[in-house]
Amino acid sequence: MTLDEAKQLDAADPLAIARERFALPGGVIYLDGNSLGALPAATAERLRDVAERQWGEDLIASWNTYGWIDWPTRIAAKLAPIVGAKPNELLIADSTSVCLFKLLAAAAKARPGRKTIVSQRRNFPTDLYVAQGLAEMLGLTLKAVEPDGIVDAIDEDTAVVTLTHVDYRSAAFYDMAAVNSAAHAAGALVVWDLSHSAGAIELDLNGAGSELAVGCGYKYLNGGPGAPAFVYVAERLQGELHSPLQGWMGHAEPFAFDDDYRAASGIRSFLTGTPSILALAALEAGLDTFDGIAMRDVEAKARALSQFFVDEVEARCGGEVQLASPRDPARRGSHIVFAHAQGYAVMQALIDRGVIGDFRAPDLMRFGFTPLYTRFADVWQAAEILSDILSSRAWDDPRFIERKKVT
Amino acid sequence: MTLDEAKQLDAADPLAIARERFALPGGVIYLDGNSLGALPAATAERLRDVAERQWGEDLIASWNTYGWIDWPTRIAAKLAPIVGAKPNELLIADSTSVCLFKLLAAAAKARPGRKTIVSQRRNFPTDLYVAQGLAEMLGLTLKAVEPDGIVDAIDEDTAVVTLTHVDYRSAAFYDMAAVNSAAHAAGALVVWDLSHSAGAIELDLNGAGSELAVGCGYKYLNGGPGAPAFVYVAERLQGELHSPLQGWMGHAEPFAFDDDYRAASGIRSFLTGTPSILALAALEAGLDTFDGIAMRDVEAKARALSQFFVDEVEARCGGEVQLASPRDPARRGSHIVFAHAQGYAVMQALIDRGVIGDFRAPDLMRFGFTPLYTRFADVWQAAEILSDILSSRAWDDPRFIERKKVT
Repeated sequence: MTLDEAKQLDAADPLAIARERFALPGGVIYLDGNSLGALPAATAERLRDVAERQWGEDLIASWNTYGWIDWPTRIAAKLAPIVGAKPNELLIADSTSVCLFKLLAAAAKARPGRKTIVSQRRNFPTDLYVAQGLAEMLGLTLKAVEPDGIVDAIDEDTAVVTLTHVDYRSAAFYDMAAVNSAAHAAGALVVWDLSHSAGAIELDLNGAGSELAVGCGYKYLNGGPGAPAFVYVAERLQGELHSPLQGWMGHAEPFAFDDDYRAASGIRSFLTGTPSILALAALEAGLDTFDGIAMRDVEAKARALSQFFVDEVEARCGGEVQLASPRDPARRGSHIVFAHAQGYAVMQALIDRGVIGDFRAPDLMRFGFTPLYTRFADVWQAAEILSDILSSRAWDDPRFIERKKVT
Repeated sequence: MTLDEAKQLDAADPLAIARERFALPGGVIYLDGNSLGALPAATAERLRDVAERQWGEDLIASWNTYGWIDWPTRIAAKLAPIVGAKPNELLIADSTSVCLFKLLAAAAKARPGRKTIVSQRRNFPTDLYVAQGLAEMLGLTLKAVEPDGIVDAIDEDTAVVTLTHVDYRSAAFYDMAAVNSAAHAAGALVVWDLSHSAGAIELDLNGAGSELAVGCGYKYLNGGPGAPAFVYVAERLQGELHSPLQGWMGHAEPFAFDDDYRAASGIRSFLTGTPSILALAALEAGLDTFDGIAMRDVEAKARALSQFFVDEVEARCGGEVQLASPRDPARRGSHIVFAHAQGYAVMQALIDRGVIGDFRAPDLMRFGFTPLYTRFADVWQAAEILSDILSSRAWDDPRFIERKKVT
């Protein structure tokens, strides 16, 4: 395809209008929104308003005046159409890791006597670390297996299964309904990590029979670096599951200042401490970039963009890079991984040329396609620049080979 | 004392210059900085810079370019002179409740076989809720006793003692060194909650032999609503104690993406998930309001302000309100509590007149004195307005009696 043809795809794109919702720097093709979403155009002004007007002028009264106390549920409700859940099943809180700890601990407690947590080898690391910490604390065993062994690993001793829905490396994803069914048949619960799914592809938590999930606010949801995470607890489990990480914000009456904990009804009981209102405001601006946009269209564009990249790269670079994502677009999330023995240096050379992706050990170059602001013309140019770097061996330079702290 | 005399105290106040570091609204006497610190003058611009320039322009590269990855320790180091600790003993993370859970769990694990957590009845509620949740999870017992019974409650079965240093209601504080000594003699650990101490009075964690502490970023530290909390772990315990709430940010090499958790060396191992960079930026602006100011001077002014308030209120209001804080200024933190049967309504009437304190059940009116921005003239006027409201019974009005969601 030519650049002009790519531009024609952009001109016909029904999501093209969403790009104006972001403040994107010039001279950059940003293919890392799967790691840190771009800055929404509205965020800086929202932060200014919360800081200067709400906090600065109304001070402590803002907890009532601006309803800060309800922001964790009010803002979470905006996720409902993005993940396919009811608004009252969602909460914004803490970090993904802390939220996962809460749900895994609550699930383990709801399945007393069962001694196993099932997960995947090479799951996103923090998911394994959280499960390892909890398992050690409770005397449970973490059984991490290969992706195709998950269903077989679930048995009568399984308290909970925890999986990242879309793999952070390959972008391969699980059949959510199938894993849920297998777990439920064995009497186990499932906690999904939607960090690389939410905002990237169409999700239907309710339709898939999902009970528990967490996800990241700072990737496809554009909530800003280290944005708070979200928690999903299916309505039918809300009275039954209890987080052991209990704090005053999850109390039925926080301002009664009782000595004894009584869990709030509903999803609020999964709150712990006081949430950052500034971080919540930024996350809300991120969620608002999805306003009026159907996730079906987002997923369709994600597939079109990522397949376009695969086609253009393979046409130019042949055997120099190996696709390490599923070849079938219907089996992938919204990013693409190509392996190259010098993947780290090649990615640094790309960044130097304004094409920003990232690197995941040992040899993976990762490119994220965020349908709200990535254009087909960007994808075409990224493929062109990658091809140029590979053919010229521009990556073979000490400044590209030296490793940075954060990759 | 007359208002003119109060103004003379302000003119002679060596901390008067710090008031310019805040953006305070006109027409308000803010005596609730113990609940939510006022907006620092620098915060809004810092947030704009982090959002628009760092996140917006440098995107993912900012984790390296601006060193975001090190902000939890870099910013925490600014707390060292405020709490009397070494910079490498401090970390910014999560909320106070989550941080407390981490330290209590780590302490309990370090004292295997011991089955009791000792705390105080009417401790700040979230501290009790966290301890209750952990105790239930681990099969421990929470023994909550009266303040004067703490030392006697500590025995060979005590794994950990957790206390709020300055009481959120009365402002009475514990003798930190004495409690530490009693606990250490019994082989127990102590976790201090410094939420109502840090930034209000002079602390010397190292000098008092303290091992573990947490504290709030949004009260006297001016970090903004729901600011992240801080963790203190004495250097000598850093290799020995481990948080079970482990995540990738606490890993020795987060970007190696290993399947197995290996704790980072030092205080970083108490990190879990990715921290909110926006919330950290606001907290840093809050901590910077203490730049160049000695905590000895802060404590001296806190005592002078609070004693001035007690004197002026008692001179005017006699037996109508009862001091519910220790009468000896050397036994109090930086806030004052007066009891009144209609305390809720009286506080609402005060707020209506621009004097902002808060109410704590069942009958306590709480007034915080934040030495960086409270003036003696403010205190004088607050006492005058309180006296006027009580003598005129202005509080006896339906709009003041109806309870708000957040008190």
